[in-house]
Amino acid sequence: MKSIGLFGSTGSIGTSALEVIKKENEFRVKSLVFGKNLKLAEKQIEEFKPVFVGCINKTDSEYLKNKYSFIEKNFYGEGISELAKSVKHDIFISAISGSAGLLPSLNALYSSKRIAIANKETFVMAGELFNKISEEKSVEVIPVDSEHSAIFQCLKGENRNEVKEILLTASGGPFRNYPKEKFENITPEMALDHPNWDMGKKITIDSATLGNKSLELIEAVYLFNVNYDKVKIVIHPESIIHSMVKFNDNSIKAQLSIPDMKMPIQYALNYPYRKKSVIKDLDFFKLGSLNFEMVNYEKFPIVKLVKKVLKNGGLLPLVFNRINEEAVWAFLKGQIKFTEIYLYIEKYIDKYWDLKEENVILDNILEIDNKLKKEFRKDL
Amino acid sequence: MKSIGLFGSTGSIGTSALEVIKKENEFRVKSLVFGKNLKLAEKQIEEFKPVFVGCINKTDSEYLKNKYSFIEKNFYGEGISELAKSVKHDIFISAISGSAGLLPSLNALYSSKRIAIANKETFVMAGELFNKISEEKSVEVIPVDSEHSAIFQCLKGENRNEVKEILLTASGGPFRNYPKEKFENITPEMALDHPNWDMGKKITIDSATLGNKSLELIEAVYLFNVNYDKVKIVIHPESIIHSMVKFNDNSIKAQLSIPDMKMPIQYALNYPYRKKSVIKDLDFFKLGSLNFEMVNYEKFPIVKLVKKVLKNGGLLPLVFNRINEEAVWAFLKGQIKFTEIYLYIEKYIDKYWDLKEENVILDNILEIDNKLKKEFRKDL
Repeated sequence: MKSIGLFGSTGSIGTSALEVIKKENEFRVKSLVFGKNLKLAEKQIEEFKPVFVGCINKTDSEYLKNKYSFIEKNFYGEGISELAKSVKHDIFISAISGSAGLLPSLNALYSSKRIAIANKETFVMAGELFNKISEEKSVEVIPVDSEHSAIFQCLKGENRNEVKEILLTASGGPFRNYPKEKFENITPEMALDHPNWDMGKKITIDSATLGNKSLELIEAVYLFNVNYDKVKIVIHPESIIHSMVKFNDNSIKAQLSIPDMKMPIQYALNYPYRKKSVIKDLDFFKLGSLNFEMVNYEKFPIVKLVKKVLKNGGLLPLVFNRINEEAVWAFLKGQIKFTEIYLYIEKYIDKYWDLKEENVILDNILEIDNKLKKEFRKDL
Repeated sequence: MKSIGLFGSTGSIGTSALEVIKKENEFRVKSLVFGKNLKLAEKQIEEFKPVFVGCINKTDSEYLKNKYSFIEKNFYGEGISELAKSVKHDIFISAISGSAGLLPSLNALYSSKRIAIANKETFVMAGELFNKISEEKSVEVIPVDSEHSAIFQCLKGENRNEVKEILLTASGGPFRNYPKEKFENITPEMALDHPNWDMGKKITIDSATLGNKSLELIEAVYLFNVNYDKVKIVIHPESIIHSMVKFNDNSIKAQLSIPDMKMPIQYALNYPYRKKSVIKDLDFFKLGSLNFEMVNYEKFPIVKLVKKVLKNGGLLPLVFNRINEEAVWAFLKGQIKFTEIYLYIEKYIDKYWDLKEENVILDNILEIDNKLKKEFRKDL
């Protein structure tokens, strides 16, 4: 049995991961970490009986400790990162969403054989650092995001020096065909109605702005160690091709399946093996057609901005990520307009342009990230 | 420099192979074998200066010998197989079309390090035998057909025990949307107008009947050592996805490019490396959509018949191939109707049903193949 540390158990990746784990008899959930959804977490704890549990609130943590005697130790708040570092796991599933996932991911590099990574912010905020440590510690890093899993699968057996382009597919979100002049008036309710995947609120808004695809682009650059200008976004509304790789010889490999996160999760857990499927078969004869379009940069300027950010590097991706995250939550709370998400990111990138010279070390990352968060909240 | 034996130099594969060889500086055409197109062959001989030359006619052979002093030795007729066996090549390109390609392919196993194989009949007539010898002699066999190259590429780095299905794509040919009741009156002129590829006459008719796809299905079974019922045909009119592999976990890998034979040829020559492209880039934004359909078995009964043939095995694939080849040439000469191609194959499969028990050894293959040829020609 392989021991699993599941960090972010109640989100969409976490619950899908538990479904996969339940279907296969090879994994034991040793540690389970959740955020605020105590009710769902309790169900999971009763079913999977982890010996280490982490959560955000002290109250929840003590409640669980008193109720479940099989829990050896409870962690809360910043203790979650301690859990990631001190408890050994065969596979660490990094599925906490947003910036909160960074420190657990980094810490897990010291205690895990493999990291199945769904947390984009780890790469966006500290990609260079994460890669450096994972290499030093010889930790296997396997992507869980459907796009990055697709790229990873397409690269299997291939020589990475022969990669010409990475074609990152994007559904285009719910406003692909929506008129640009109405973008200003998009409400959270409208944006939360994403066509292809069932996800959390933050990532759903990110899908609507293509902010998510921009973060995935940064993730791809660090995960696959390629120059940013080799990563192209291809709008593919059906979300059947999860991404592609084009090689020097103009041969392209694509990975396809029905859109279901359980596939890449299962792959990341079992790699290099492919186990009996936990998802439905793709029926080509019911599929209709597969379509491809260019990104409309007028509607989705964030996709241009992210390339500028990657070109200049340093801590600019950190600014991009933090302001995006803050702005999305502000939009969800009704504090700013849909189109202002981009405008705020652009404003802060301009303001903090000098951060392109800054060293990507952990102290800098945490300090500046915190400063940006406070400043943005005052700025509103 | 790697030495090349190019067998079938004046056909569509042969001429494309020479284009690839010309663009790269790593190959030397040591042997060149052609059929009847002396005019084109002369140009090729002058340009590539092979030291061994083979052709069908004694007259052509002697003419070339007298004209080109750099030719060390000429072969003709059955001598072509002797050339395949006696001259060592780093890479033997088996691009003679039809049954005439069998003996050279088999003989090349004794003298080549790698066989880049485009001749389907080698597998259809003697797949088991070819596999046995190539394994014994440790000859690398790399497919050149775009479909099989796609499958080969999709399998790279993957575990062959984890293959669930091979999805062999087919353009569907020019009569995919043609009414079934008019099939009887399809003329050679109509059938030679194939939509996606520029090929020889025999293979163009095979594309129109889906006989070609049926032969490719047999080829896939032997090349990839899979059961026939794991190979599915998917009609994909755009010919952009060249084939796919579905794995146990319902993840599918596909290989895509513009339809140009130079890509799989280049891959077969350079494998495992991918060199600078000799084909145009695929532009997803000009592509429009990719579509998929089921085969219409009413219009294309040959696809059902080939599965019956593979299920029962023995020498039935040989009958299938020989009668198809004879019937296609008879159709091209105006001797039989388009729909009779299938009817003749069906008739001979029924008549020679007992050949499913026959051993697949070379003597049997050649004797029965010859007998069928004579019988069919009398039968017309």
